[in-house]
Amino acid sequence: MKRKNIVTIGGGTGSFMLLSGLKNYPVNISAIVSMADDGGSTGVLRDELGVLPPGDVRQCLIALSNSSDIMRQLMSYRFGGNRLKGHSFGNLLLSALEKIKGNFVDGVEEAAKILQVKGEVIPVTEDQMRLVIKLKNGRMLKGEAHLDHSKEMRRVGVADIYLESKVGANRRAVGRIKKADLIIIGPGDYYGSTLPNLLVKEISDAVRKSRAKVIYVCNLTNKKGQTDGFSLERYISEIEKFIGCDRINFVVFNGKKPRRDFIKRYESQEGKGAVVEFKDRKRSRRYRVIVADLLSSIQGERKDTSVNVHTLIRHDSDKLARVIMTIAEWEDGRSLIREIL
Amino acid sequence: MKRKNIVTIGGGTGSFMLLSGLKNYPVNISAIVSMADDGGSTGVLRDELGVLPPGDVRQCLIALSNSSDIMRQLMSYRFGGNRLKGHSFGNLLLSALEKIKGNFVDGVEEAAKILQVKGEVIPVTEDQMRLVIKLKNGRMLKGEAHLDHSKEMRRVGVADIYLESKVGANRRAVGRIKKADLIIIGPGDYYGSTLPNLLVKEISDAVRKSRAKVIYVCNLTNKKGQTDGFSLERYISEIEKFIGCDRINFVVFNGKKPRRDFIKRYESQEGKGAVVEFKDRKRSRRYRVIVADLLSSIQGERKDTSVNVHTLIRHDSDKLARVIMTIAEWEDGRSLIREIL
Repeated sequence: MKRKNIVTIGGGTGSFMLLSGLKNYPVNISAIVSMADDGGSTGVLRDELGVLPPGDVRQCLIALSNSSDIMRQLMSYRFGGNRLKGHSFGNLLLSALEKIKGNFVDGVEEAAKILQVKGEVIPVTEDQMRLVIKLKNGRMLKGEAHLDHSKEMRRVGVADIYLESKVGANRRAVGRIKKADLIIIGPGDYYGSTLPNLLVKEISDAVRKSRAKVIYVCNLTNKKGQTDGFSLERYISEIEKFIGCDRINFVVFNGKKPRRDFIKRYESQEGKGAVVEFKDRKRSRRYRVIVADLLSSIQGERKDTSVNVHTLIRHDSDKLARVIMTIAEWEDGRSLIREIL
Repeated sequence: MKRKNIVTIGGGTGSFMLLSGLKNYPVNISAIVSMADDGGSTGVLRDELGVLPPGDVRQCLIALSNSSDIMRQLMSYRFGGNRLKGHSFGNLLLSALEKIKGNFVDGVEEAAKILQVKGEVIPVTEDQMRLVIKLKNGRMLKGEAHLDHSKEMRRVGVADIYLESKVGANRRAVGRIKKADLIIIGPGDYYGSTLPNLLVKEISDAVRKSRAKVIYVCNLTNKKGQTDGFSLERYISEIEKFIGCDRINFVVFNGKKPRRDFIKRYESQEGKGAVVEFKDRKRSRRYRVIVADLLSSIQGERKDTSVNVHTLIRHDSDKLARVIMTIAEWEDGRSLIREIL
């Protein structure tokens, strides 16, 4: 059987989790990654060295890496001290390789070799990409970092999101979407990771035109000021607005209820409806919703060896990958899915 | 024929050059490296992160590395920007690995794996090592960095050098010296790289007691305020003072005269006798002096891909290694040496 070509579209911890699971299957993986990050270590490197943002790419490289544990640990290691504080080693690696090779994409390719990466990690653009966040009171905030830090945004809410100026898509990203059997959008920060990719016009055009099955992996939780009380249905309609048509074929949704105390903690921080709901199960719909137990069983907060995970309610990468692979093999009649709504 | 066990004692660019050549021969190499550096990127990391000094170890790892060119380039890459300025990527790698593994020696071992190092690089001590430089006017300067930067030192001159407090030798360094067939001291900065190793009492004790042939590779040039006008003979007697007895069996000395304009430039900067001379060729002596053409034929200043080399008069690593290997095989009657004095 021909290996499936799977394209993921995202960035950050969401892609890390998805790719960590998919890596173990015999498929061709192309991870398209947002380049909008401008906070933290990544932001400092963008400003001071004039490099492209390494943070999201780093996480995807680690997820797909087959190198030693120590190498993966190293990539996520964050320095202390004064001037180095907060820089992750992997970000410095990517920035140094960008400088040595002369451009970010070739630098990422070298890093992928060093890290023995399965598949490929593709920055969505080679241009400098800046988000502009329009708040509901009309104020404009420049820079993705505001999504993490702006108190005004949390209070007022995001109305819309743009790119500061048009950016061209990485040619390889467009090529991989064209040849994809499966395109997976999400999970991950809606404004911070998912949408920045779709704001690149050639990317959303390519998704719209592709003949691949498009899967949307819905987030588990919402963010105050950003996706307050979003339901599954709302996410889909919003994302399809950015794609430009009804394009999603499958939706993967977690059907297992998180622990009650975890839900409470999220609601105290992110407001009512902090856990994403699937509202109307009875309605007929264009897309298939796969409801499955996707929850990580690791209880409480932990510091993952590869990526910092502070969330209590999170996806399990193995479970998610198994469901994705079932969808990938749908036409081969290998479905193991029990509940299809 | 049994592979020879070769131990080198040094640090910095001198060891880099020596090891780059030796690497290509079928021998077991153990590079013992000074841990006295406290200037530049290394000094900042020592101060801010409390790590051991990575700079000298980095250069030896690069010299012995069999990994790709890009990996070696990466290790020597120095960041620009503001807060990262001057940090070499390799220093950051070693410091991160020290933090992850919990100690410097294990960190170096991991780095050696990542860099596919032939042989081993052994920090002379695992203790924090600080040089104290006594000037001829009685002033004491604390820190190896003064050797590069103190104008007073250049004017007044160094009288003596100590360790701020006693440090224990790395056990493995002592073990390798015991089993060595050949011990190579130098080339490299006399006060900055060579002596700090011999100031570790267990190291000089072990060299004194070992049954290995001891080779001293003499520097090509002198440094103002440090080794003003030192001759070959003076270097040997000084170094044997630190070893504690007449222990040197072979001396490797460059017999090819450098370009006249290069000599002039050195003399204008480092004073008269800037190029080391072999004074009394006719005197009988305990040690054998191998006079050979050891000069690098690369003319003028250049930026080496792996280590910054700003010197005009420098050793050629291949020529030096060939002479060393001839000495190593001396008893096997394979000597190709023409001139022995």
